[in-house]
Amino acid sequence: MPERSLIFPCGEFQRRCAALQSAMAVAGFDALLLTTPADVFYVTGFLTRFWESPARPWFVLVPRAGDPIAIIPAIGADLMGRTWIDDIRTWPAPDPRDDGIGLLSETLNDLVPGGGVVGLPMGLETHLRMPVADYDELRARCQGRRFGDATRVVHGVREIKSEAEIDKIRSICAVADRAYARVPEFAVEGVPVDQVFRDFQIALLAEGADWVSYVAGGAGQGGYGDVISPAPVDPLLRGDVLMLDTGAVRDGYFCDFDRNWSIGPAPDDARRAHHALFEATETVLDTLRPGMRAHDVHRMLSDSLRAAGATPGGGRLGHGLGITLTEWPSFTPLDDTELRAGMVLTLEPGVDIAPGRILVHEENIVLRDTGPELLCQRTPPDLPEIGT
Amino acid sequence: MPERSLIFPCGEFQRRCAALQSAMAVAGFDALLLTTPADVFYVTGFLTRFWESPARPWFVLVPRAGDPIAIIPAIGADLMGRTWIDDIRTWPAPDPRDDGIGLLSETLNDLVPGGGVVGLPMGLETHLRMPVADYDELRARCQGRRFGDATRVVHGVREIKSEAEIDKIRSICAVADRAYARVPEFAVEGVPVDQVFRDFQIALLAEGADWVSYVAGGAGQGGYGDVISPAPVDPLLRGDVLMLDTGAVRDGYFCDFDRNWSIGPAPDDARRAHHALFEATETVLDTLRPGMRAHDVHRMLSDSLRAAGATPGGGRLGHGLGITLTEWPSFTPLDDTELRAGMVLTLEPGVDIAPGRILVHEENIVLRDTGPELLCQRTPPDLPEIGT
Repeated sequence: MPERSLIFPCGEFQRRCAALQSAMAVAGFDALLLTTPADVFYVTGFLTRFWESPARPWFVLVPRAGDPIAIIPAIGADLMGRTWIDDIRTWPAPDPRDDGIGLLSETLNDLVPGGGVVGLPMGLETHLRMPVADYDELRARCQGRRFGDATRVVHGVREIKSEAEIDKIRSICAVADRAYARVPEFAVEGVPVDQVFRDFQIALLAEGADWVSYVAGGAGQGGYGDVISPAPVDPLLRGDVLMLDTGAVRDGYFCDFDRNWSIGPAPDDARRAHHALFEATETVLDTLRPGMRAHDVHRMLSDSLRAAGATPGGGRLGHGLGITLTEWPSFTPLDDTELRAGMVLTLEPGVDIAPGRILVHEENIVLRDTGPELLCQRTPPDLPEIGT
Repeated sequence: MPERSLIFPCGEFQRRCAALQSAMAVAGFDALLLTTPADVFYVTGFLTRFWESPARPWFVLVPRAGDPIAIIPAIGADLMGRTWIDDIRTWPAPDPRDDGIGLLSETLNDLVPGGGVVGLPMGLETHLRMPVADYDELRARCQGRRFGDATRVVHGVREIKSEAEIDKIRSICAVADRAYARVPEFAVEGVPVDQVFRDFQIALLAEGADWVSYVAGGAGQGGYGDVISPAPVDPLLRGDVLMLDTGAVRDGYFCDFDRNWSIGPAPDDARRAHHALFEATETVLDTLRPGMRAHDVHRMLSDSLRAAGATPGGGRLGHGLGITLTEWPSFTPLDDTELRAGMVLTLEPGVDIAPGRILVHEENIVLRDTGPELLCQRTPPDLPEIGT
């Protein structure tokens, strides 16, 4: 069990911790307070589905120097003890009198001198996974310490993946590739779409996913309505375009890409839309380089779609990927994040075919100095047909 | 699709909204701000796995009177439009300039007069699913309004399940019952435990789960070490006790119960522990009535285990259940929540067999005026054996 629960050798976590501490020093933070499953996993290797229970908060502190400290419910001591973390402090949560705040504030007051600053992620795409009243109490108990926004400290480190992380993402992408290849076996005319969703999840598990955190999709005549709905119970019909999208997980790392199929011969407009999406992605695969900005990807995809006579969909056209289903940056006109080598990204152009009918593509890449490297198999240029 | 995405008839949601508004009136709240998947689903019926993406916040406001208002990313408009909610206001998230706070604060300032109070869950077992910096900005923009703790308003309503909700939980419990019955087919000596976890998830999906949000377990000689770890890659050995625990989901409702098996003949101490756990649960099934307190359940379970010569495990020995894997109250010595008819609960006694070896049982019940009604099949009194 030890090597599996650690996921990576200790050196990987020590490197992460050192990178966070370098960024903290630049930003002027004396300690970093982390509370979410992804941030805790990133620093410690502590991986559990028990986060699904909202009953208890979990805290990890990264000091200016030295190893992280885990301040966690006693139920997690055994599992945290199998990670590289040595300093583990526990309380018998849930405790309505004091759910860890006494222990956390004492530790913070030891780590952070009066006048010092505690950093925690407060910005876009973050939240604090602890009760608001307890956060107020924590600040009251840490008098003389300031709480500042460490979003960029954490994002700036997490967004560059190590080769070990890239291997994990490539591995879960390969699982999804094999599961997608099996979709024509069960996504046939007459089968209810919710059954297709179940069979697809079964295929992902059978092909090696540890678990399936996300499946969405859609099916409709010549295109689907949205990309976040649970499965309808209606049967697949001839003329439907089916889309499946998954964030499956292995060793705590996600894939996030989708695939489309036509049930029966593909309608002309869906076929044209699929082609335009394929070509738009091709443009980015050919052109993207480190130093470009997130909004450049949005522009490249939109321009290519318009040049093909298609109407680009609204919203973001891709994003970061790693230990959550979606990470920053966002491929929108507003995001000027610099794209750097080592970022794992999704390219997700969409087109509006008609009112209420869209088509969306997604591929997963890692950005290299020389350009994008695909982490999943490329979708075929022609919309695949099932049952023709 | 509409009837599936709504999950329940409108009347169910109108009843919930009215119950929240009654509790708000007593507590003096002019509006309720909800941000988590469970709270948003409870009020609106909006069900999606898209919450897996941390990129965007979602807001639902329950006013003093009248229907709820959804203030959400544009990507969710289509799905929210298929619920009973009519007033849906959207913005193109994620927007680094203003990720919904302008829209949310305007709406709150309209709903809540100067001097009024906005309630939001701030207490035990809650968190605020939005960036901390945006919450600060929201309060700054809602000058003259106070933000107060609405934990009991939300918990007091959500903790009493309607018959429609109980039917949903019974339905997913039946799915898990059928999946557990199939475990002896694949959990045999020599099979790696992580493969058992995959096969169990596949069985849950094949038996009708929409998705599997939680599987944990353990396996070890005569007992396991903890109950929250991901699966080890080691093979099952003769003499192992295997435990599987699941929170599978159907129509947004969870089950949460576990089962134990001995691989080969059960060791005597594990067999005795299993008996003691069965009898402790039996005591509560016979004795529990509305009006008792959460800590009474902890005491009954612990006393019964001690009377059988077993050592009760630490931590809580059960909890609420519904639209998250775990809900309040907690069966600990410290929780004095009054247990009421309509609460769906788990009974989860554990014993320490030896250092690093535990055994845990779990059953799901609904508390009726006449006592507990089982929602899952009762585990057998004798530890089941596989491969004897």
